[in-house]
Amino acid sequence: MGEMKKLINNPEYVVKEQLEGIALAYPDIVKVHFDPNFIYRTDAPVKGKVAIVSGGGSGHEPMHGGFVGFGMLDAACPGEVFTSPTPDQMLEAAKIVNSGEGVLFIVKNYSGDVMNFDMAADMAREEGIRVLNILIDDDVAVKDSLYTQGRRGVGTTVLAEKICGAAAERGYDLEKLANLCRKVNINGRSMGVALTSCTVPSAGKPTFELGEDEMEIGIGIHGEPGRKRMKLKTADEITELLALSIIEDIFYKRTIREWDEGKREWVDIELEDPTLKHGDKVLAFVNSMGGTASIELPIVYRKLHEICEKRGLKIIRNLIGPYITSLDMQGFLIPFL
Amino acid sequence: MGEMKKLINNPEYVVKEQLEGIALAYPDIVKVHFDPNFIYRTDAPVKGKVAIVSGGGSGHEPMHGGFVGFGMLDAACPGEVFTSPTPDQMLEAAKIVNSGEGVLFIVKNYSGDVMNFDMAADMAREEGIRVLNILIDDDVAVKDSLYTQGRRGVGTTVLAEKICGAAAERGYDLEKLANLCRKVNINGRSMGVALTSCTVPSAGKPTFELGEDEMEIGIGIHGEPGRKRMKLKTADEITELLALSIIEDIFYKRTIREWDEGKREWVDIELEDPTLKHGDKVLAFVNSMGGTASIELPIVYRKLHEICEKRGLKIIRNLIGPYITSLDMQGFLIPFL
Repeated sequence: MGEMKKLINNPEYVVKEQLEGIALAYPDIVKVHFDPNFIYRTDAPVKGKVAIVSGGGSGHEPMHGGFVGFGMLDAACPGEVFTSPTPDQMLEAAKIVNSGEGVLFIVKNYSGDVMNFDMAADMAREEGIRVLNILIDDDVAVKDSLYTQGRRGVGTTVLAEKICGAAAERGYDLEKLANLCRKVNINGRSMGVALTSCTVPSAGKPTFELGEDEMEIGIGIHGEPGRKRMKLKTADEITELLALSIIEDIFYKRTIREWDEGKREWVDIELEDPTLKHGDKVLAFVNSMGGTASIELPIVYRKLHEICEKRGLKIIRNLIGPYITSLDMQGFLIPFL
Repeated sequence: MGEMKKLINNPEYVVKEQLEGIALAYPDIVKVHFDPNFIYRTDAPVKGKVAIVSGGGSGHEPMHGGFVGFGMLDAACPGEVFTSPTPDQMLEAAKIVNSGEGVLFIVKNYSGDVMNFDMAADMAREEGIRVLNILIDDDVAVKDSLYTQGRRGVGTTVLAEKICGAAAERGYDLEKLANLCRKVNINGRSMGVALTSCTVPSAGKPTFELGEDEMEIGIGIHGEPGRKRMKLKTADEITELLALSIIEDIFYKRTIREWDEGKREWVDIELEDPTLKHGDKVLAFVNSMGGTASIELPIVYRKLHEICEKRGLKIIRNLIGPYITSLDMQGFLIPFL
């Protein structure tokens, strides 16, 4: 057992058994398709509506499977824990949820996810389904990383899925929906911190080691290295560190990844100065990485609110809770829109 | 720092700063009163409606403060972490939310909570407010415990607050509402397991020690001892252990605590055989203790569903997630109604 204590039966069946549990728990909202695995709306395809499909490695619950339903995703494709789903999952999901209005793939920017969603989009097009892929690459912590060219996709994914999900219900067509998703991504930025590692069931030991008085600033949602390891600070100090990095977003040049149809590849496009300015309206989001006690999250929000006020940023919406997690990791992520 | 890694500024201010964060985050739903501390509905008092007030030690978030709002509580009184709130909190809360229709105090059965809510009820009555106290004592794990005469109050509290909250909106009068709450408690039963301890901020170290391959069956929500410590088992085996204890509920005689006006004390009343029978309709609830990864909860629900089916119990509602927690404890609680 070592350091791993998990409520599982066998590391090999975690994703499968979780999907079985979801199918039993929420039959009025979702159905689960096995081999290939995906969760989809019970009422799919929804006539006259563009479908939205997302997915990625498991271990970030409730994202994405928990976001399938009215006003959000039409389908979600879970890979094994921290492992990209495969093109056949995405293709089959797209075929089931497509009503004829086309499908938007919302893809977190990790090399495996990007490649497999690209391949699935090509396969779907061959079957006559219109598909557009939009990448989410909002993590301001690092430029490139272990599994990424460019910035990683993290918390803004949750917001893109909700905002585009609502717009799709209102009748946005595929191009308009893709543009909205692109806009959410351009405006979104996130940064996280880990106080403890997560433990992948099949690994059976923590993904990385952190000293008893250490934290990792700019952590990735798979436990991949962040910007800096440092001594643990107070909630206010940590929140300030993250929030200022996000608000200024000048540590690395802000680029977004756009599909270049001529080159047939994703290219980096540099944005203008992304620093948030006095008077900007923002959505402030304090996201638990999974293992953090609920009592701690409003303490972070309290400081985030103060920082925004001082900078003249107006919080017009907020979210506080576990929406995109890293298994049992203690820590939090501040996505900002 | 030792083994404690928390997103806090100072153990002394955890509850205060959390309340400040809640006040900033949800001004459209709740207001926060400081000294004495309580959270209450922005629109209180709600004309013509019986008010419902609950409370208890902090550390179980989102319960109770997160359950204040339309169709649930009118006010919640948080004590310090794992410490009973004081009668002045409950009295002031009752005065603010009482519309003239009276106040129901929903009280988890812990000696401090019971005593202080009794005292607050007496004080409120002296000020002309009609108050009834109902105890929740649903934990089937142990008969008496560290802080309890009789069974402990755990997960059924969440259900009582929701069910009575909805009934109050529908116009139930105080007596009818108290009877409904009593009925929810009589039918509710819970049992939990801990895979890891929780760590109280002011203590700075885990409340109890568990070996790397051990779990505590029948754990209390403050980390107080359960029924048995044993080697860690699979999710299916643990779920079966808890579910069968709950379904049969014959380990200890099922008593409920009722107020005896003549004796002026709470007395135990023994119930008939509480074993759930074929054909019974149930609400099945898989509650995270706070630190458990979200991916694990549907795995537990999957087995719970199978056990219910085998016993002929019909699940007509379910809840899966962190509703009543023990800070960062890994483990889960199965409340059943």
